[in-house]
Amino acid sequence: MRSRRFRLAPAVASARSRRSGTNSFSLPMACIFLWLSVSYGDVVTRAEEGMFPMSELAQLDLSSRGIELAAQQLFNPADASLVDGVCRVNTCTGSFVSSQGLIITNHHCAYDAIQKASTPETDYLHDGFTAKSLQDEIPALDYTVRVTEDYRDVSAAVLAAVDDGMSFRDRTQAIDKRRKELESAAESEHPGLRAEVAEMFTGKTYVLFLYTYLKDIRLVFAPPQSIGNFGGEDDNWMWPRHTGDFSFMRAYTAPDGSSATYHQANIPYQPKRYIPVEPRGVDEGDAVFLLGYPGRTSRHKTAAFLAFERDIRLPTVVDLYQWQIDTMQKISAGRRDLELKHASRIRSLANVEKRSRGQLKGLQRKSLVQKRAAEEESLRQYITSVPEREAKYGPLLDQIAAVYAEMSASTPRELLLTQLRIAPRSAAAAFFLVDSAYQRQKPDLERESDYMDRNFAQSIQNMQTSLQDFHAGTDAILLAGIVDRLRSINANEYAALNIPPQRAHDLDGLKAWAIDLVSSSLLGQPDFFASCLEKAPETLAEVNDPLLQLILRLYPAYASMRELEKEREGQLSRLYGSLVEVKQAFLATRFIPDANATLRFTCGHIRRYSPEDAVIKTPITTLGGVVDKTTGIEPFVTPQRVLDMYAQRDFGRFRNEALDDVPVAILYDTDTTGGNSGSPIMNSAGKLVGVNFDRCFEATINDFAWDESYSRSIGVDIRYVLWITGNVYGANHLLSEMGVSP
Amino acid sequence: MRSRRFRLAPAVASARSRRSGTNSFSLPMACIFLWLSVSYGDVVTRAEEGMFPMSELAQLDLSSRGIELAAQQLFNPADASLVDGVCRVNTCTGSFVSSQGLIITNHHCAYDAIQKASTPETDYLHDGFTAKSLQDEIPALDYTVRVTEDYRDVSAAVLAAVDDGMSFRDRTQAIDKRRKELESAAESEHPGLRAEVAEMFTGKTYVLFLYTYLKDIRLVFAPPQSIGNFGGEDDNWMWPRHTGDFSFMRAYTAPDGSSATYHQANIPYQPKRYIPVEPRGVDEGDAVFLLGYPGRTSRHKTAAFLAFERDIRLPTVVDLYQWQIDTMQKISAGRRDLELKHASRIRSLANVEKRSRGQLKGLQRKSLVQKRAAEEESLRQYITSVPEREAKYGPLLDQIAAVYAEMSASTPRELLLTQLRIAPRSAAAAFFLVDSAYQRQKPDLERESDYMDRNFAQSIQNMQTSLQDFHAGTDAILLAGIVDRLRSINANEYAALNIPPQRAHDLDGLKAWAIDLVSSSLLGQPDFFASCLEKAPETLAEVNDPLLQLILRLYPAYASMRELEKEREGQLSRLYGSLVEVKQAFLATRFIPDANATLRFTCGHIRRYSPEDAVIKTPITTLGGVVDKTTGIEPFVTPQRVLDMYAQRDFGRFRNEALDDVPVAILYDTDTTGGNSGSPIMNSAGKLVGVNFDRCFEATINDFAWDESYSRSIGVDIRYVLWITGNVYGANHLLSEMGVSP
Repeated sequence: MRSRRFRLAPAVASARSRRSGTNSFSLPMACIFLWLSVSYGDVVTRAEEGMFPMSELAQLDLSSRGIELAAQQLFNPADASLVDGVCRVNTCTGSFVSSQGLIITNHHCAYDAIQKASTPETDYLHDGFTAKSLQDEIPALDYTVRVTEDYRDVSAAVLAAVDDGMSFRDRTQAIDKRRKELESAAESEHPGLRAEVAEMFTGKTYVLFLYTYLKDIRLVFAPPQSIGNFGGEDDNWMWPRHTGDFSFMRAYTAPDGSSATYHQANIPYQPKRYIPVEPRGVDEGDAVFLLGYPGRTSRHKTAAFLAFERDIRLPTVVDLYQWQIDTMQKISAGRRDLELKHASRIRSLANVEKRSRGQLKGLQRKSLVQKRAAEEESLRQYITSVPEREAKYGPLLDQIAAVYAEMSASTPRELLLTQLRIAPRSAAAAFFLVDSAYQRQKPDLERESDYMDRNFAQSIQNMQTSLQDFHAGTDAILLAGIVDRLRSINANEYAALNIPPQRAHDLDGLKAWAIDLVSSSLLGQPDFFASCLEKAPETLAEVNDPLLQLILRLYPAYASMRELEKEREGQLSRLYGSLVEVKQAFLATRFIPDANATLRFTCGHIRRYSPEDAVIKTPITTLGGVVDKTTGIEPFVTPQRVLDMYAQRDFGRFRNEALDDVPVAILYDTDTTGGNSGSPIMNSAGKLVGVNFDRCFEATINDFAWDESYSRSIGVDIRYVLWITGNVYGANHLLSEMGVSP
Repeated sequence: MRSRRFRLAPAVASARSRRSGTNSFSLPMACIFLWLSVSYGDVVTRAEEGMFPMSELAQLDLSSRGIELAAQQLFNPADASLVDGVCRVNTCTGSFVSSQGLIITNHHCAYDAIQKASTPETDYLHDGFTAKSLQDEIPALDYTVRVTEDYRDVSAAVLAAVDDGMSFRDRTQAIDKRRKELESAAESEHPGLRAEVAEMFTGKTYVLFLYTYLKDIRLVFAPPQSIGNFGGEDDNWMWPRHTGDFSFMRAYTAPDGSSATYHQANIPYQPKRYIPVEPRGVDEGDAVFLLGYPGRTSRHKTAAFLAFERDIRLPTVVDLYQWQIDTMQKISAGRRDLELKHASRIRSLANVEKRSRGQLKGLQRKSLVQKRAAEEESLRQYITSVPEREAKYGPLLDQIAAVYAEMSASTPRELLLTQLRIAPRSAAAAFFLVDSAYQRQKPDLERESDYMDRNFAQSIQNMQTSLQDFHAGTDAILLAGIVDRLRSINANEYAALNIPPQRAHDLDGLKAWAIDLVSSSLLGQPDFFASCLEKAPETLAEVNDPLLQLILRLYPAYASMRELEKEREGQLSRLYGSLVEVKQAFLATRFIPDANATLRFTCGHIRRYSPEDAVIKTPITTLGGVVDKTTGIEPFVTPQRVLDMYAQRDFGRFRNEALDDVPVAILYDTDTTGGNSGSPIMNSAGKLVGVNFDRCFEATINDFAWDESYSRSIGVDIRYVLWITGNVYGANHLLSEMGVSP
């Protein structure tokens, strides 16, 4: 019934697999990863940077980090290990907490599913949701779950596809194609599994990951959003935190245990291993570790990149996103149906907007740019000090800076063009149709990933699900506002939009134009969208839909933007490859590769911090703090039942003695980023003590530079999860399923 | 040369004066003040509510509060005492720090003087100001300074003027007149001093204060506003704080020592006593006390009052003020001349706006209203439990609630009408002319205070100085916006404005109307304003100025508003008098009267606090914190010289060992409010260790309810004052004048 174990190709053997007697191989990877040369012995109680790939676990002295498990108990492709209990849930992380595929992740990770299941009549976002039995669980159609089964270094195979004579664009395409070929070969070799090649060090190292890939995911339990998103955008990215940001989902398979899309006859997935729950939680000072899928960091990028982020990209994003949020909030005001349509979008925009603001503030305040520039100055001196080195690496930093200079000039336009095709739902549908028409003509391996045979059905599903949030008025206002901004940035492009002259002069005119356009388009209709799928470009061009025609006119611009991106990517890939090389030689250290949405391990302690002069933030919040923050005004509303139970001190077994209260959220100094949302927080014995959901505001800058003084992650305490689920909302059957007595 | 000692009337003798052998008298007052019955012995290290009047010092066990001075060393009308070193500076507090009338107060208290002395060419606000000698000191024409000399209870004399048969309005007027008579008599008896009768407990107790009153005040030293207002509105009302909010001024007298307005021949005032400076500062846990002139608190008001503040007044103020700030900022953008004109106004508006927001948040969150309502419910039960009590006090709480219900209905209109006559500078001038024309016809004692002979010259001076900030465009936009708001609130009043119909329909029309009106008025011109002074109402009515005519048309509304206010005041005065009576009986406790801008004592300790779950704020900030907050973007700019000296750790004698840094600001748990700005913070020996300038955000609610968990005041540390003044800006002559070696 369970998916078969992934057996690795016999060609290479890793230190770990050799020890364990199997034939997987991670030694070559370990050689490639550049490692901090300091011994780990002296950092027992100090936090450290590091989102360690599985290949590095064996090199870590886990016990000096307070962890009682051996590396093999964490990850072992030959046998059930902790990693089998951890999964990727769309772009989040989750963990299996029962033998029956029960997943705990964040409320904000399940948010899209809760929103889509909600109507003004059955308002699960507002009221919360409890499935009393398996039959009540609600399919979350655009959710997928993957579990890492194994990995192998494929750097040599990937880089064999390129040579230094190639153009940057050709280089990118060649690497891309080779990655897909390797994935395809691996999937043939391991039927039922999903293969993905991830770039570890830009332009240098590549690893093939194999995943169990589950496609029938259902919503099991969600607290009301007044709990799951308590504090809303006000508290987002902030500590202290009082948010019960958790939900339960469940993965299903076909009756034979194979991966399948939703079907009534499907059965709960049986993970090889699940994470046991520790209802006693943790205390300040306790060691914790996380496994998860951190998305993206930029710790190895140059000062020119940081300046580009600070001066160009982040301010543009903050402005564009804030405007979209304001627009949607204005449109939704007082209408719950529209509020529900916009809720998930507003929330993701607001999340990125505030994180970007935090990063901007961090980049402005922490003088990171100057610091990194100073480091590069030393590197530059090292390079120029020896003629051969000078010859090989001399122009490197300037060449990288030149790429960001070009990007600085073009990014505002590119961001606007991108928003034009993603912000209005109907424009997104139009772009999908046009893009897929062109892409699907190509051989499978040359397509963009979304349009490859193995992904296309899910891509269509996602697009159709997102059309549920279509609202013509919103689309029109967003379209008009973006086009208006484009006008002041690029007159040629604006002219190419063919806007009738009488409407092209101001925002009011553009709004009238956009309202006409969107309301006479059928792209917001799922049926119409479906009818246009799989059309060839010529046939599609004959469809008389004004929005589709608009996107067709813009398509050459998008195509050339994509080419340009590949060109840059190829260029940066080669340049950063060299940079890592010479930095390694200069610093005589070893680095951990930037996060790239592959499975990582990070560890630390429950720990207070001082975000600024004269402020200390302690690492455990309480239900008393929830009550104290409650004003009755959004986003600080608390269900009456919670307030009553607090007043009666009805904490059951989840009361903490020292606090005389239920702990709500915890703070710890591990190294996380977006994608770690939903990661299990485990104690020294590998038991679940919380669910990671955020970082503190200062730590938004983590993505660019980690620092033990301010890098802190935030999780919901398992005691609050269990108290809310069982004691407050009576879902004791879930506690039993997790082996916890109420 | 010094002002003569105030000798009290021999009729009554106080406990203190009897002990000291003089004939002043505060015993009767002590009997009137209702006192917390708990013994003070058990609160040695705990903070306590209490802005104690001088009359209560003898009852306090100062040594148990960590203060080494006896009550008589603090206040003693028969001899020089600490109080002689404390003064009121306009509505702020200051202290004399040399024998030559040198005053230290806040930068924000001297702000108006600094602004008025600044031009784009000599930009003292931006650059700071140092007078190298007495000759360089700049007159601050609208500043006055007063020093408390003595006080005496006059409750019996005041209340003899009223009886229960009077209407509320007559009652207010009778009390008002009697207070002025008493002031006038006291001033005849003590030539050269200024007398003022203050209401202590509403409707119950009145005290006559005698003041030395100085009218030639000059600016001596101000740091750049990047230091004096570091953090600006972002940090205002916030801890941790990094603001060097201090300036030096100096008081002058005529050559014979008598009070005089500015004259070149004037000489520095010689206070009977000045406050010695302690350059070693304080540490966490040290006892401190403050003397100052706290403005207004409402701790004895009812739940109905709190609800009125929460639901009506505070939200209206926040909205109106924020709009005015936005308007002026928009107008000033990019023009330093206009920025300077608007700086002081924007700052005071922003200060009140943010405080009001803090109070609103506090009233919403802390459930103060419900708590006070519950206390009143107990009082109500106490009242109804005995028939005689029921007969006497039965309807009391409902009657008070009825007054606030009426105010709730009328306040939005009243606030708008008031803003109409104070927000546009030219409208304020017009109102002053009209009001004074009517008032000056009355006998002196029946006039509003501003127009009494003894105040009129200063009132004109203040008005003329404020006209320096006149800007026609600003006035017009403010006028239009206020009138537009009035339109939606009171159609009759709006009609009475006689706005031409074609312009009366929308804001754009109103703006055109207001621009016409303001630009064809001459009221912004000081000469024209002066030419209209002292005209009789009939003569003034003939002046052909459209803005003057507008205010003349509105004047009856203002007059009746003033009558209504007196009516309410009389009513509340009687009702609160009874409330205090019955509460005293019920609680068997003694209260401290609400702050009323008279001299008060408060004491506590340098002390951390926890504003919320999981947050601890420690009580001393550092120069390192200033550097850390510095972004180079307003309001977080720091002069390069400060940054350089920090980098070189050039702290001189002002480095604190434990912090290895210069302390910048301190936090302590005394009981303060607005008016305490500039109060000397003194250590246990009565030496100056800092200058009070703010409260933390949670403590904005202080005005309604004090709480030892969140009530914290903020001061600038004397070590930062001295380091900035001497080490950074080289004004070592001031350090010498204060007896501090650099």
